Amino acid sequence: MSAVEVAPDYAGRRGALRSLLVENEIDGLLVTDLVNIRYLTGFTGSNAVLLVHAWDSRNAEDRTVIGTDGRYRSQVAEQVPDLRSEIARATALRIVALAGEWQFGRLGYESHVVTVVEHRLYAEQRTGLELVAAPGLVEQLRMVKDAYEVEQLRRACKAGDAGLAALLERGALRPGRTEREVARDLEWAMFEHGSEAVSFETIVATGANSAIPHHRPTGAVLAAGDFVKLDFGAVVGGYHSDMTRTFVLGPPREWQREVYALVQESQRAGCKALRPGAKTGDVDAAARAVIEAAGHGSLFVHSLGHGVGLRIHEAPGVAKNGTGTLLPGVAVTVEPGVYFPGRGGVRIEDTLVVREGGPELLTHTGKDLTVVE
Amino acid sequence: MSAVEVAPDYAGRRGALRSLLVENEIDGLLVTDLVNIRYLTGFTGSNAVLLVHAWDSRNAEDRTVIGTDGRYRSQVAEQVPDLRSEIARATALRIVALAGEWQFGRLGYESHVVTVVEHRLYAEQRTGLELVAAPGLVEQLRMVKDAYEVEQLRRACKAGDAGLAALLERGALRPGRTEREVARDLEWAMFEHGSEAVSFETIVATGANSAIPHHRPTGAVLAAGDFVKLDFGAVVGGYHSDMTRTFVLGPPREWQREVYALVQESQRAGCKALRPGAKTGDVDAAARAVIEAAGHGSLFVHSLGHGVGLRIHEAPGVAKNGTGTLLPGVAVTVEPGVYFPGRGGVRIEDTLVVREGGPELLTHTGKDLTVVE
Repeated sequence: MSAVEVAPDYAGRRGALRSLLVENEIDGLLVTDLVNIRYLTGFTGSNAVLLVHAWDSRNAEDRTVIGTDGRYRSQVAEQVPDLRSEIARATALRIVALAGEWQFGRLGYESHVVTVVEHRLYAEQRTGLELVAAPGLVEQLRMVKDAYEVEQLRRACKAGDAGLAALLERGALRPGRTEREVARDLEWAMFEHGSEAVSFETIVATGANSAIPHHRPTGAVLAAGDFVKLDFGAVVGGYHSDMTRTFVLGPPREWQREVYALVQESQRAGCKALRPGAKTGDVDAAARAVIEAAGHGSLFVHSLGHGVGLRIHEAPGVAKNGTGTLLPGVAVTVEPGVYFPGRGGVRIEDTLVVREGGPELLTHTGKDLTVVE
Repeated sequence: MSAVEVAPDYAGRRGALRSLLVENEIDGLLVTDLVNIRYLTGFTGSNAVLLVHAWDSRNAEDRTVIGTDGRYRSQVAEQVPDLRSEIARATALRIVALAGEWQFGRLGYESHVVTVVEHRLYAEQRTGLELVAAPGLVEQLRMVKDAYEVEQLRRACKAGDAGLAALLERGALRPGRTEREVARDLEWAMFEHGSEAVSFETIVATGANSAIPHHRPTGAVLAAGDFVKLDFGAVVGGYHSDMTRTFVLGPPREWQREVYALVQESQRAGCKALRPGAKTGDVDAAARAVIEAAGHGSLFVHSLGHGVGLRIHEAPGVAKNGTGTLLPGVAVTVEPGVYFPGRGGVRIEDTLVVREGGPELLTHTGKDLTVVE
């Protein structure tokens, strides 16, 4: 959209986290989730621990520090020039020890990430610190995407759209080919259009397999008359796209037209319900009601959607009875499906960002029933 | 090697686990690690919990059960036909409740995988069960590969070898191309040779970048005179291969010949030390001694190797002061490296299986200094 390149504001994100720490009366947070660390610092290595200090700039020095091991010495210096770093093999224990030396008092830790074994090791350090379970704080911030993040999501979704368009243009989706071949071609096409990686294992499900919500591509051969369901995504700047389209190979039968139209209507209702202030459960209900009214409620076996960003699945879940409230800037999928076991199924999925004036659609591939001849 | 197709013996693996449970005086183990569940059942979905019952066949029914959610109803029936299954949205809590109903008494859980938050949820179930931390039991079994597993590793390594050979034959490794292009081509070539996925993010590091042990491919352009380090792997049947080769683009300079020969000698010493009964620390030391004797010990900044199987990194670690003992059938990498910051580095890595008569080499690409003209 915007031609202006925005840069990630890591210091700003850490500042927002600090406010949460102060609210929670924690002197610092030990961040051990690597995706959270990437969000807060830009570091992308496979081992790191970040200690975010909830310091008061009036009377203390900022003790925020990122730890990693010797393999990443140069990488951490390059990617995180604005923070002090600590190189240690037992990285987490070293950072906990530092927090003890600096007399942090109440040290928060990510209890939804830290294992029971790790927690015991921290506790055995005898640092004098009080370890305080502080789950989900960074995830709470990550839910609302900033301008830089939305731009990355747009690019990832664009790579997905372009990959799918290239697949269709090349005639790679046709009877006689296997699910696995189509999956590989689609992934390759996304790479050619700027994707760094696949968001998740690409789903290509043909014929009766299309009734399996999360089907892994097999050697099954696409046949005339099949529904073919493609669920896939690209990654750009670490951000994931997610889109599902269902095609029909050759002239659709009546039941195929009907179920497709039903899912399309449900998907439209779900997108329409994406408003700031809406409860996630109500968004799910808006889409589900359409399918239930047609008598197929029991065939929509999963929830409507999920948050998407640095992880393919993140907060908020958009599910039955969900109580979370949508805010502007939240990125989610809307993906109802109806599956007739043994026969075939349809899912249609977009990635969108909640906005005041109505959601911003990031996946632009058309959603009308496409007949591939 | 063998043309005979062997099948995974899931029941046998669960039997071996049961012996460990009896040894640990646990009535059952709640397995929540998805890779461990795949190892014990063959299930590959993204949500599952397995309860392995340490039942006594003389006086009780086997209560072993696999839980998942509605998305995987047909997949679990197909992949795990020999176990009862339970479909529930809050899968883990449902399985814990079942263990309570069945009066398991002492229920083991994977404390190295279960988070502090999850543990609290289990404990709050008021099942009357005693929750017992039981870390690493399945990982202990997974360390020694059975015939089926070694065959998958052979195939994965073969796909890696073939992919690299194809890359070189096509002349895709040459000055003027970017690290990212070479990485993509190599991954594609592995797919063409049977790989299901990449083992990990392919490393292509040219020139000074080759001195960064874990470098992510960038737009850096390969230039004449560069060391180019490729570290990559294929996946077959869920099993990972891992291999590193370092090439030189055009005639090598004297320092390049020297460091290459040194790492090659170190790697040879490490492989030679891979004997049943050897301590992992002694294997690391055998390879490290060669580099230390040349005065470059401080430039070998990582451990010598790691176990490899259903995960790219698994037990045992082969590191300084490691106390584990190698057994026949253990699969590990041997990957010494010497890195001159700002200048360039060399790593040579094979995947091998420990055998009585000397290790079985799975990665067959030659290791003499290869000059790519």
